[in-house]
Amino acid sequence: MRVYRVHVTIENKPLVRDPEGEVILRDLMIKNGFECVRKVRTAKLLKMEVEADSEAEAKEITAKMCNELRIYNPVVSICTVTATSGEA
Amino acid sequence: MRVYRVHVTIENKPLVRDPEGEVILRDLMIKNGFECVRKVRTAKLLKMEVEADSEAEAKEITAKMCNELRIYNPVVSICTVTATSGEA
Repeated sequence: MRVYRVHVTIENKPLVRDPEGEVILRDLMIKNGFECVRKVRTAKLLKMEVEADSEAEAKEITAKMCNELRIYNPVVSICTVTATSGEA
Repeated sequence: MRVYRVHVTIENKPLVRDPEGEVILRDLMIKNGFECVRKVRTAKLLKMEVEADSEAEAKEITAKMCNELRIYNPVVSICTVTATSGEA
């Protein structure tokens, strides 16, 4: 058993609007002169340490858990799980 | 001028507590039988498209902007900017 670093990203599906990102882009960045920014989409990131026998298992357990615990709303959001090669 | 994908991650400094992550770990994951999870730290991710002459410039502009606009609180948080090699 080792401890692996796993990242879970939860974000709105591409076709679902992201009002928070739109406001950051329009009313914070562009209004303050940073017209070089073209798009902002916000996401929630969970940086986790997961005990497992392999990196693949850490990723699999985490993805299963996120679905079972309904940590995101599958109707509007996507949940991406990545396990980094190194131990935590 | 090209458009680059830039990711901005805002998270609490390692020595600053993250109550949201602690609750997710203790009251959601461990309480539901996922004892394999050892640690959860939450972060905010901004997925951006930034117009610049190079990847390095996209990263530099974004880092400067995050500081100037006080998009995070430097007392408690760290802000990490990464530009991905590909165009958006």
